[in-house]
Amino acid sequence: MDEQALRQMLGEVAAGTRPPDDALRQIRRLPFADLGFARVDHHRRLRQGLPEAVYGPGKSPDQCAAVVAELLERDDGPVLLTRADDAQVKAARSAAAEAGHDDGTVVSSGGLATVLWRPAPPRESRVGGVTAGTADLPVADECRAVLAAYGFAPMLLADCGVAGLHRLLASIDTVASADAVVVVAGMEGALASVVGGVTAAPVVAVPTSAGYGAAFEGVTALLGMLSSCASGVTVVGIDNGFGAACAVARLLR
Amino acid sequence: MDEQALRQMLGEVAAGTRPPDDALRQIRRLPFADLGFARVDHHRRLRQGLPEAVYGPGKSPDQCAAVVAELLERDDGPVLLTRADDAQVKAARSAAAEAGHDDGTVVSSGGLATVLWRPAPPRESRVGGVTAGTADLPVADECRAVLAAYGFAPMLLADCGVAGLHRLLASIDTVASADAVVVVAGMEGALASVVGGVTAAPVVAVPTSAGYGAAFEGVTALLGMLSSCASGVTVVGIDNGFGAACAVARLLR
Amino acid sequence: MDEQALRQMLGEVAAGTRPPDDALRQIRRLPFADLGFARVDHHRRLRQGLPEAVYGPGKSPDQCAAVVAELLERDDGPVLLTRADDAQVKAARSAAAEAGHDDGTVVSSGGLATVLWRPAPPRESRVGGVTAGTADLPVADECRAVLAAYGFAPMLLADCGVAGLHRLLASIDTVASADAVVVVAGMEGALASVVGGVTAAPVVAVPTSAGYGAAFEGVTALLGMLSSCASGVTVVGIDNGFGAACAVARLLR
Amino acid sequence: MDEQALRQMLGEVAAGTRPPDDALRQIRRLPFADLGFARVDHHRRLRQGLPEAVYGPGKSPDQCAAVVAELLERDDGPVLLTRADDAQVKAARSAAAEAGHDDGTVVSSGGLATVLWRPAPPRESRVGGVTAGTADLPVADECRAVLAAYGFAPMLLADCGVAGLHRLLASIDTVASADAVVVVAGMEGALASVVGGVTAAPVVAVPTSAGYGAAFEGVTALLGMLSSCASGVTVVGIDNGFGAACAVARLLR
Amino acid sequence: MDEQALRQMLGEVAAGTRPPDDALRQIRRLPFADLGFARVDHHRRLRQGLPEAVYGPGKSPDQCAAVVAELLERDDGPVLLTRADDAQVKAARSAAAEAGHDDGTVVSSGGLATVLWRPAPPRESRVGGVTAGTADLPVADECRAVLAAYGFAPMLLADCGVAGLHRLLASIDTVASADAVVVVAGMEGALASVVGGVTAAPVVAVPTSAGYGAAFEGVTALLGMLSSCASGVTVVGIDNGFGAACAVARLLR
Amino acid sequence: MDEQALRQMLGEVAAGTRPPDDALRQIRRLPFADLGFARVDHHRRLRQGLPEAVYGPGKSPDQCAAVVAELLERDDGPVLLTRADDAQVKAARSAAAEAGHDDGTVVSSGGLATVLWRPAPPRESRVGGVTAGTADLPVADECRAVLAAYGFAPMLLADCGVAGLHRLLASIDTVASADAVVVVAGMEGALASVVGGVTAAPVVAVPTSAGYGAAFEGVTALLGMLSSCASGVTVVGIDNGFGAACAVARLLR
Amino acid sequence: MDEQALRQMLGEVAAGTRPPDDALRQIRRLPFADLGFARVDHHRRLRQGLPEAVYGPGKSPDQCAAVVAELLERDDGPVLLTRADDAQVKAARSAAAEAGHDDGTVVSSGGLATVLWRPAPPRESRVGGVTAGTADLPVADECRAVLAAYGFAPMLLADCGVAGLHRLLASIDTVASADAVVVVAGMEGALASVVGGVTAAPVVAVPTSAGYGAAFEGVTALLGMLSSCASGVTVVGIDNGFGAACAVARLLR
Amino acid sequence: MDEQALRQMLGEVAAGTRPPDDALRQIRRLPFADLGFARVDHHRRLRQGLPEAVYGPGKSPDQCAAVVAELLERDDGPVLLTRADDAQVKAARSAAAEAGHDDGTVVSSGGLATVLWRPAPPRESRVGGVTAGTADLPVADECRAVLAAYGFAPMLLADCGVAGLHRLLASIDTVASADAVVVVAGMEGALASVVGGVTAAPVVAVPTSAGYGAAFEGVTALLGMLSSCASGVTVVGIDNGFGAACAVARLLR
Repeated sequence: MDEQALRQMLGEVAAGTRPPDDALRQIRRLPFADLGFARVDHHRRLRQGLPEAVYGPGKSPDQCAAVVAELLERDDGPVLLTRADDAQVKAARSAAAEAGHDDGTVVSSGGLATVLWRPAPPRESRVGGVTAGTADLPVADECRAVLAAYGFAPMLLADCGVAGLHRLLASIDTVASADAVVVVAGMEGALASVVGGVTAAPVVAVPTSAGYGAAFEGVTALLGMLSSCASGVTVVGIDNGFGAACAVARLLR
Repeated sequence: MDEQALRQMLGEVAAGTRPPDDALRQIRRLPFADLGFARVDHHRRLRQGLPEAVYGPGKSPDQCAAVVAELLERDDGPVLLTRADDAQVKAARSAAAEAGHDDGTVVSSGGLATVLWRPAPPRESRVGGVTAGTADLPVADECRAVLAAYGFAPMLLADCGVAGLHRLLASIDTVASADAVVVVAGMEGALASVVGGVTAAPVVAVPTSAGYGAAFEGVTALLGMLSSCASGVTVVGIDNGFGAACAVARLLR
Repeated sequence: MDEQALRQMLGEVAAGTRPPDDALRQIRRLPFADLGFARVDHHRRLRQGLPEAVYGPGKSPDQCAAVVAELLERDDGPVLLTRADDAQVKAARSAAAEAGHDDGTVVSSGGLATVLWRPAPPRESRVGGVTAGTADLPVADECRAVLAAYGFAPMLLADCGVAGLHRLLASIDTVASADAVVVVAGMEGALASVVGGVTAAPVVAVPTSAGYGAAFEGVTALLGMLSSCASGVTVVGIDNGFGAACAVARLLR
Repeated sequence: MDEQALRQMLGEVAAGTRPPDDALRQIRRLPFADLGFARVDHHRRLRQGLPEAVYGPGKSPDQCAAVVAELLERDDGPVLLTRADDAQVKAARSAAAEAGHDDGTVVSSGGLATVLWRPAPPRESRVGGVTAGTADLPVADECRAVLAAYGFAPMLLADCGVAGLHRLLASIDTVASADAVVVVAGMEGALASVVGGVTAAPVVAVPTSAGYGAAFEGVTALLGMLSSCASGVTVVGIDNGFGAACAVARLLR
Repeated sequence: MDEQALRQMLGEVAAGTRPPDDALRQIRRLPFADLGFARVDHHRRLRQGLPEAVYGPGKSPDQCAAVVAELLERDDGPVLLTRADDAQVKAARSAAAEAGHDDGTVVSSGGLATVLWRPAPPRESRVGGVTAGTADLPVADECRAVLAAYGFAPMLLADCGVAGLHRLLASIDTVASADAVVVVAGMEGALASVVGGVTAAPVVAVPTSAGYGAAFEGVTALLGMLSSCASGVTVVGIDNGFGAACAVARLLR
Repeated sequence: MDEQALRQMLGEVAAGTRPPDDALRQIRRLPFADLGFARVDHHRRLRQGLPEAVYGPGKSPDQCAAVVAELLERDDGPVLLTRADDAQVKAARSAAAEAGHDDGTVVSSGGLATVLWRPAPPRESRVGGVTAGTADLPVADECRAVLAAYGFAPMLLADCGVAGLHRLLASIDTVASADAVVVVAGMEGALASVVGGVTAAPVVAVPTSAGYGAAFEGVTALLGMLSSCASGVTVVGIDNGFGAACAVARLLR
Repeated sequence: MDEQALRQMLGEVAAGTRPPDDALRQIRRLPFADLGFARVDHHRRLRQGLPEAVYGPGKSPDQCAAVVAELLERDDGPVLLTRADDAQVKAARSAAAEAGHDDGTVVSSGGLATVLWRPAPPRESRVGGVTAGTADLPVADECRAVLAAYGFAPMLLADCGVAGLHRLLASIDTVASADAVVVVAGMEGALASVVGGVTAAPVVAVPTSAGYGAAFEGVTALLGMLSSCASGVTVVGIDNGFGAACAVARLLR
Repeated sequence: MDEQALRQMLGEVAAGTRPPDDALRQIRRLPFADLGFARVDHHRRLRQGLPEAVYGPGKSPDQCAAVVAELLERDDGPVLLTRADDAQVKAARSAAAEAGHDDGTVVSSGGLATVLWRPAPPRESRVGGVTAGTADLPVADECRAVLAAYGFAPMLLADCGVAGLHRLLASIDTVASADAVVVVAGMEGALASVVGGVTAAPVVAVPTSAGYGAAFEGVTALLGMLSSCASGVTVVGIDNGFGAACAVARLLR
């Protein structure tokens, strides 16, 4: 319920066409669907401008399917199922099909599957993605799939780690001319600082858990990105390709 | 042995009807049963007012069964087996049946099973449970099962995370009118602060290990709840639905 | 604005005596006073049942004085200034006096001062406080001062650490018969487990930063209390005597 | 040296008007001034679009003054001195005056001083700032001073912590209509999640070291913001008001 | 080579019966057997008074067997294989049998197997073992098996956690009269403080990884034991039942 | 109250010479003196065999003086004041003098003062102390002062770090023939492993906060000592020279 | 492209034989091959003097095979596949064979396989390797395999932990006369300090994750090595045998 | 005592010119001077090839002076006093002068003073030093002073952080042609990876505590350097400029 709707409702109360108690009830209830185990937020897309995403881990295949179906039927924007395992993907796609929708686009990388229904229309902003190594690809791929849901077609430069800077410099025009850049890197995460130093565009850094030993499952990259000597680099959680894509969508509205 | 019993015993010594050495022996021995691998505490229910609970992990199925049987036979209150795997559940239920008891109520959620025998009679206090997301449900379900052992019938509001506050606000009467509220949340655990801000009732916060990357298996939610800007929120250990239920039982005696 | 007020206001809209736009404005605005650097929450006492407390650190003496004065004038319940240094205490007491109030009660312990105005009327519940050592007293004293604001007169048992259990056992009736117990302990924090084992009352544990080396400024006590083998013990943040008092106030409403 | 300049220089080599060795030297040398203890980067503003900022800690007053003077003389954009102590502020302002510049604007808050020379012309974007408590103001003030260097005039909503949500909701239009929002919060940092849930704009979260005990000098807020259940919230380092302002400048170019 | 042997050798050099170069070579070489992948220390028992122990993890079954055989043949004291899996146990026992030794005594508990050959003759010192819960038994059992290698016959009191202190108090004579006490506890590890408070004997505390969530795999118990308010409690590493037994052997030589 | 006293008291009840209520009161009360801020444990020396020690930090000079005086008057064994600052030392010594006692022996090292009254009679056991560097001396000196209270006269080998092993080897007889060895080391704490490898005696390792950077205030030495490859080394808390001395006293009773 | 090539190219521009735009393009592009998922750095060997290594984890067998084949065909130096699983090894060897190369040398230890093609010619420098225990061998073996790629034939002294120092002293000539020493140790990592104390050669320390409990997966050894009291010891990441070998190759160029 | 001396001594025993007991005594005693609080290692320079360094913190001015004097008189190589405060510097220089030596060279930077006596003769190797920012200079200056003791004259490139890569690239010949490079960087420490990527020389990385918030006093830089994607970079402890210089001295012997 946005401000206009609230204004209209109160007008109806003033006009005597809506009893006050009914207004009271409405004010308290923004739209969501209570499935018992989940309260599906049909209002989020309006409020945040983001598609609805169903996070797979911790949900049964049936729960995934039910939420996806609810979102496909009640909303009309993009719907995402993220970090889904095979059973969850299968259940959700079946439920979508039963409800008369197509079975979505599956992006599977490194054991993480993202499923997308009803992507937003294409948008013109140029989003660049840069990864430090091949092991960062699954996180970058999740990011790409979510960006696609928003209508973006990101350009991905893979394997540009700072130990061989010329690999990044070779594509520096792509980075420098992008409207936003997502840097996906594990190990020491130094790539974020270097990219932040060569572009004036917003840089969203995603630390990944790639690396071993003193990389501490992404903590090292996370801390390095937060302490970047390149000003204005922002950071999302470890392996959070989904969050980086949402951050880009916020800033390229 | 409570104070009255101690007084009576000393009276018997004074009256010459109990030899001093016997009193000495009694004073040193409050009731428990030594099964070799476990000292079953038959005194705990009186002392703490809590049912006896058998914690599954680290015990063999036979050990679980033996302790459950001991408690069912010697005590007369509620008995719980928590965090049990399939073999433990099966062994304990068989042992209960062999000893002439029913085979208990099993609550299984997210791989954690709680088994309950002889629940306490229903109690009138209103206990509210709120979870941030669907992935928090297994912990909330353990909490619910243990509350049931105490005779409570908690109302559970699932999936009320702060990113869609209207989902919580829609049920705010339930939260505001409860005698105690248990908040179960992973990720950043912000829900505890928000709930603490809208109710004057005791709030017991349970951080969960739901979330990934920078959620650090529940540490982030734990620290957030401990640092809550809502005054008087208390916290139990990560994923400790059992502990939250016991805390509620203590404060709604 | 509670539900009744909202209902009345909507009734006025329905009756035509209040224009809808005015109602819209009201719904959005619960009472608080914007001092520029602070939004003083005049609604908190009703909503949470807690007195207003002004947290000193990070505020200038003038800011402390202004918020205290605002609360004394607009509200009518207890007002607290916590963790105040000398300059803050002096400024706040002067401002109170200028505004025609008394200059409050100062509890100063270990360098932390709490100032209290208009304590709530005495309440009958028995609150017990137990500390492990003398170094825990400043935190316990903050807790006591805040409990006094709520009208409680806690009994404090100081220096009952588990290395000399008989010191606790000597006062065990006090602990066992309390309606709520606050345990304040640094070092390994074991006292919370022992107290939790001998009483059925709610136990709120406050880890303190007392101790050195491997006590890690309270982290050890915090983790120990969260992992307590006594069921249903709840925990607040390190050195958070204020929070423990508020938790007690919630559960002894 | 941007691409066009490089192209021209190579054209000169081709035309024989520039010896190859000279070109080689140029390619290697983008403009900076080597002061011995510092290499002042005159190219950064062009490359990153950011003003030059001199970070005070670890520099002597003389070093601060020398770098500020160098930047004021060789560049023509905004110049900032951040986190400066009194001696550094004094030295830098004197040096600026001696070099014929004005003595800048000083923003001093909570012991941190920011000095600004030659702010950029005013820009129209609406930037919102929200703090959880009064103790977060010094960080927010640094952020504001840096935003002013870029030409932004941010609106600051202070003291909107989630324990009294109505304080935030009262100003929700300001938040919802901003082009970018900076959330500054210590303790559990939950405000970032709540703000992220009510706006579609980019949200840059700054964890602060405000709070004590389990707030762990900002670590708790940092982790909470990184784990936010509101999608697309990005985070900068602890107390890094400067970085948040730079991030905003990147995304509102 | 002890001091006497060195003296004799130098005497031989002085007597001309041993060439200096030979002495030089001897001085450099204390007895050990180089198996390529391991240097078996035949001197340790003399030097440290401890039996030789082969730590299983990271060794192949063949390597375990080879070292065990080497020790059985060249030394004449107790030999232990610790933390062995089934294949390692089998290989080592076969090798022992082939070499004409018995196949040892296997203590298997919680997935950890200890195998013992040639235990030392019985010793009279009374060693007490106390565990907090049943889940601590595997570590206590490893400790017991190693103590048996030294000739001790420890008395084990299982499941004496501080939440039911009377279970410990019931056996307090056993604890108070022991020559050394090993306390094995997970969760918050408070048992070490309580035991340390009731006995004047040496107390060796072993934190275990039993517990979940905020027990952090034994870190909480470890820190608690190191910060114990009972003076003079010493600590070994997490789950290190072997180390605790060796510590006891050192102090009851 | 030891077992014999309890037995006698119950005999009196049986004989009718002591009323049961009086016995009840006695059983509950082992001897301690309640000073309000402290419960002075007059029973500890009997129970644990340790002198009474007053830990300075967190106590006012007056509190230190009061506890010391109480212990000097009511007990007859050694009394220690540890980690005392100048004011505490002065107050305690004055109080002792006023009460007719001498003013104790002060050991001051690195800013930590230990004061000792009424040391135990000399004992014959040989205790060796080894430090890795000069910066470890204050902790070693605290340990020595406490050992003196027990009647030990420890031999201290200072500055024997493993980077120059011959310095330790030169005194290896002292180490090898001691009845117990205390190793005091910061940085990486490797000395504990080396000493543990050359003696069969009990080794108590004290990690110190000496070192900087990656020594992390003693955490590195602590972890290294807990993970020592020399079997049976035990560890006390960081900088806990007092605890190490008490541990030695327990094992050389 | 080294400096000479750049100089020549610019000479061609000056001579008019190369158009400026072509030079511009060249300057930006140092040689690498873009395989889509990886940018194979054909320049690294020249720039860093190191062989190309393909890190297995996170790559599919096909990706491993493609990169290995690319390197074998385009470069002419050593090629390594590290930390490969069976499928990766098989795929890479097949691809090498198909491309007309031999199938390489496989070193497999503790589940980690390293495959080597075209090792460098033998080099004369003496590299010593020392491990603390048998469990450190897999890391040492990876290090050895990589050193072999560089042409070194390291001498390995296994199982020389400091608890039995004579095992190291027996081979002290090997250590003392080496041109560089790699120390591989888990647990407390003290071996690095001892080796650093007996040789003047460069010491590269590799902490391993061998050990359990308080060894914290190599963190304890890492911190200990970084805090070593032996001056000038350098450290690489946990379990990073590859990195240690590369460090040796850098310093023995 | 080196091997030759040992051989000679044994020859004397064989020749009857030295009694065996005397030889025994000598074998046990390598040269060091026992000052009571310190064992000055006169053998270290021969054994490790490093000058003797006296680490100031934790030593009294008198102790510093005594050790410095001892080293100046008994040894004949370079002597260093590091991390000294004003009183320590003054005392040591006076003691040196009294003993007939010059008063040394003082390098003072950021509050840390290094004093050097009798530097080694100049050496030809080229050592490059690179710092990320001005705040890293004190650590780099300590490194430089220690390198000077060894006879090196390092070239320092200050303020080359990766956010402005051209500053490093401008001096890339200096870096690329050095025989060893020391990288000194705080914040995220990315400079080590970039430098490691452009040179084949040994790279010793020193993390510094420069930076704030998420830089965590150097931990972030430390972890980043250990996880560097540039192969073969080695790391010393936080702020350990001394250690880096010693590492360089080892590898450029």
